[in-house]
Amino acid sequence: MTGLFVVFEGADGTGKSTQVAAVSEALCAAGHEVVVTREPGGSAIAEILRDIILDPAHDIDPMTETLMFAAARADHLHKTIRPALGAAKIVISDRFVGSSIAYQAAGRGISQHTVTEINRYATGDVTPDVTVVLDLDESVAAPRRQGRGALVDRMEAAPDGFQQAVRASFLAQAEAAPERHLVLDATQPAKTITQQILEHLRTHHGVQL
Amino acid sequence: MTGLFVVFEGADGTGKSTQVAAVSEALCAAGHEVVVTREPGGSAIAEILRDIILDPAHDIDPMTETLMFAAARADHLHKTIRPALGAAKIVISDRFVGSSIAYQAAGRGISQHTVTEINRYATGDVTPDVTVVLDLDESVAAPRRQGRGALVDRMEAAPDGFQQAVRASFLAQAEAAPERHLVLDATQPAKTITQQILEHLRTHHGVQL
Repeated sequence: MTGLFVVFEGADGTGKSTQVAAVSEALCAAGHEVVVTREPGGSAIAEILRDIILDPAHDIDPMTETLMFAAARADHLHKTIRPALGAAKIVISDRFVGSSIAYQAAGRGISQHTVTEINRYATGDVTPDVTVVLDLDESVAAPRRQGRGALVDRMEAAPDGFQQAVRASFLAQAEAAPERHLVLDATQPAKTITQQILEHLRTHHGVQL
Repeated sequence: MTGLFVVFEGADGTGKSTQVAAVSEALCAAGHEVVVTREPGGSAIAEILRDIILDPAHDIDPMTETLMFAAARADHLHKTIRPALGAAKIVISDRFVGSSIAYQAAGRGISQHTVTEINRYATGDVTPDVTVVLDLDESVAAPRRQGRGALVDRMEAAPDGFQQAVRASFLAQAEAAPERHLVLDATQPAKTITQQILEHLRTHHGVQL
């Protein structure tokens, strides 16, 4: 694997989509080949699974949910991420394994060991070179989500305390492996955050800009 | 779990559907509460996953397939099998974990350890009380499948040698745990096989008939 695998994590409403777009645009402008993708999804079967997983009409227990996310991830890896990394591209994914640890373990109560093991089968030897965690207090993130006016999906409809557990998990994951994470204060202006991410990619991963 | 969990395994074309119907009918006639189910499927989410997994239009790699079957199984367990066993019913399932070991491990080449571990997460503490293996040489089973005239699904469309590996795996699983398996020669008349299964349930599992 000769490419660079960059993942964005954080609760909904922390600005991941904005940063994924801004960072990928800057990398493309600098002449890099960039594949922008997302989870759940990012490949044909995974997008079909995404629609099932997020549909608020479905009743899905936590272990089924964990395995469905892992299946979608295995397809995403096989069809999209691995070929792109093999072709020396920069892959930018909106969410990856860290989200399963945050949402299915910390959020839904499956043990972190179990979620990690299941995802080890799904991902094999592919791990992100860097995971950018956009960190935001729930008192700021919640109104941002609601401000979208969009339909609430099955993950966003989780009970009180869920989003706080998710945030704490992202921070704990970063603290456990600081060399592979970049935690940023998501209350900062979007342009400032983009510059911090690009600077990190330049200084820590040799990305020319 | 106070019910009885009976699973039927074997390649396509060995007569599983016929035996599932005949055995469940006999058990119902004897006054038992019987839940007849199947895999992949047997619950709302699992049936949706079944349609995706079996669709020959889809390209699904072996690990994704393994995790999709496991997700479907977790839902099937949670929604159908566990509640029925808890209510002291007899659950008869056309396929279960044994099929994943036969098809995804022996057939597709995922390690048996990996398939077993993933399915341990999906099934928790629920294991079949008895697995009936309908054993048939591929030279007999293949024409039976073709004789159906139905569309060939994605599992049936697997390459040469796949069905032989599947058959060998079912026999090996039975040999490894003979106390939980009943292997029957599927070239026998259907009524003879039904009687052998019912006799086994009566003598080994105390089922009144």
